[in-house]
Amino acid sequence: MARITDVTARLFTVPLDEILVDAKHGDHSHFHLITATVTLDDGRTGTGYTYNGGRGGHATAAMITHDLAPFLVEQDAENVEQLTHAMDEHLHYVGRGGILSFAISAVDIALWDARLKGTGQSLVQAAGGASDRCKAYAGGIDLGFDLPKLLDSIRTYLARGHNAVKIKIGQPTQAEDLDRIKAVRDFIGPDITFMVDANYSMTTDQAISMAKAMKQFDIEWFEEPIEPDHFEDFAKIRDASGIKVAQGENLHTLHEFRRALPHVDFIQPDASNCLGITGWLEVAKMAKDANVPVCSHGMQELHVSLVSSQPHGGWLEVHSFPIDRYTTRPLVTEDHLAVAPDVPGIGVEFDWSKLTPHEITL
Amino acid sequence: MARITDVTARLFTVPLDEILVDAKHGDHSHFHLITATVTLDDGRTGTGYTYNGGRGGHATAAMITHDLAPFLVEQDAENVEQLTHAMDEHLHYVGRGGILSFAISAVDIALWDARLKGTGQSLVQAAGGASDRCKAYAGGIDLGFDLPKLLDSIRTYLARGHNAVKIKIGQPTQAEDLDRIKAVRDFIGPDITFMVDANYSMTTDQAISMAKAMKQFDIEWFEEPIEPDHFEDFAKIRDASGIKVAQGENLHTLHEFRRALPHVDFIQPDASNCLGITGWLEVAKMAKDANVPVCSHGMQELHVSLVSSQPHGGWLEVHSFPIDRYTTRPLVTEDHLAVAPDVPGIGVEFDWSKLTPHEITL
Repeated sequence: MARITDVTARLFTVPLDEILVDAKHGDHSHFHLITATVTLDDGRTGTGYTYNGGRGGHATAAMITHDLAPFLVEQDAENVEQLTHAMDEHLHYVGRGGILSFAISAVDIALWDARLKGTGQSLVQAAGGASDRCKAYAGGIDLGFDLPKLLDSIRTYLARGHNAVKIKIGQPTQAEDLDRIKAVRDFIGPDITFMVDANYSMTTDQAISMAKAMKQFDIEWFEEPIEPDHFEDFAKIRDASGIKVAQGENLHTLHEFRRALPHVDFIQPDASNCLGITGWLEVAKMAKDANVPVCSHGMQELHVSLVSSQPHGGWLEVHSFPIDRYTTRPLVTEDHLAVAPDVPGIGVEFDWSKLTPHEITL
Repeated sequence: MARITDVTARLFTVPLDEILVDAKHGDHSHFHLITATVTLDDGRTGTGYTYNGGRGGHATAAMITHDLAPFLVEQDAENVEQLTHAMDEHLHYVGRGGILSFAISAVDIALWDARLKGTGQSLVQAAGGASDRCKAYAGGIDLGFDLPKLLDSIRTYLARGHNAVKIKIGQPTQAEDLDRIKAVRDFIGPDITFMVDANYSMTTDQAISMAKAMKQFDIEWFEEPIEPDHFEDFAKIRDASGIKVAQGENLHTLHEFRRALPHVDFIQPDASNCLGITGWLEVAKMAKDANVPVCSHGMQELHVSLVSSQPHGGWLEVHSFPIDRYTTRPLVTEDHLAVAPDVPGIGVEFDWSKLTPHEITL
């Protein structure tokens, strides 16, 4: 028994170096980082977090402060999985995904951090320990980059030691997308793995046409070709084109993953928005049963431990939000593989002195 | 063109007379009312609102204040439907239902209020005008009432002029639920319409067993027997028992209603959490195409106009939250039918002097 005595949320608006654009989310000038810190009566603390593309941070922090914290105080912090599902049930009427899943994720990760600091385990070990490293690819929010800049960004990924890259698609015409895809494949040569991501900007028919047209360029997966809710149509696109399909970043409940999994080749849960580490591991188990590799979306600094831990771990996304500038351990790669931290806790420690200038008073 | 110059959210914690309990939402001691008021550059204002069972109000207000208001200011208020879908798309990454659907609903209703105050139309006319009145039933959050108190509450509904009643089920045993159902049917006689609501507390097998056992008591519908996400199982329960099934209060996106509609006999959208009047009318259209009567959940003071307006309008729920104490027009019923207000705007005006004592500073 370790009683929770406090849960505190903080909100940070972290600037990007330039405005970034994809097919559906408009301009990104900053991202929101929402941290949750739990304090236990034995003196332990744990810090978790969630993030978004610059919208919804206040609501997420408000839900932690006004709904989750009062529910958690006095409860036993050891029962992490039980608490996470209890929070989800407690807020079901205003939940079933959305902001609630982001808010619970931050708190769940904090509870895992406190748990592992108590046991002395690293996250990669506690989560399964299948390996201490995993495959990784670099991707950018690069739809607005002209071709020279796009190729420059790809050059940077390769220089950082990556052997897999992803670009955004969803230009005004299919021909423009195909020109960029061809240029990237010509630039990287045949041995580099190459994914594309449409951020659900296409209809199913458009996506099938796109998939058939880009098949010649050896595409590892076609991510979110269509709206995430059209679960069954993902398989239609794959079956019509022979290109594998992926989704997950926009799925926030286990019900949604249950519906999505039969129709995708890769699943990409994000622990920051699918009920934290608890939710991510439950999705991973469902994916194992479905013979689907479990990958990730965003926050590579945490997911490196989760993807590495799974026997069916797939690709870690190395996202372009500059979170590495604000933690004490930027992502480590060796021989193209991302290496999980080997320290007690979740393995992500923020450098608060760098974050504080971007804090928003709640 | 009428430019939006301001959007302001307010949060009220409105007390209930006693603690109310259903099968899944814990104790209700109060509800949250979140209002949104839009101001236009031609001097018009409009006020909309959403509500919940006492959790999530701060997050909803935060999303209106920090995400929706900045998005809406300077936009043309005439394009209500377009703005509502644009807000939903703008916040998609943190949305797809949840708090976002509640927040948008409040703003959408406010925009409708301003629109109708401009045109001089009543909501019932603008929404379709099929009738000016609709069938209505009274329901309580009465799972915690002992039998004498339950029957007292039913007596009150009948005394108020209702000819249809609903009770909560989900007692520890099926036998207890059946005892209460039998007692209510004995009390009301054969001519009063009678519904039951399990608040998704049962498994599909439990629900089928319950449905078969209560069929003898002439139940109009079995509401939310199971989790709302198990869309297809609703029809299984109906097909196995011959009792009609209903859901809707927990569905927040058009995708969810599209999945639910083929498997229910009544659909119960709540304009406070399915993208407002715009979302409710879109669900109504889908329901018409599916030959399903469109009913409602909660806020009868607004839904009376919407349900009455539809040629396939079903039953209006008269909810037990005491909202009538805080508006200028408590619900009007004539010959068991609820009558829509005939004034320009949404027909719901708050008595702010009564609400202000319950306001939470944001």
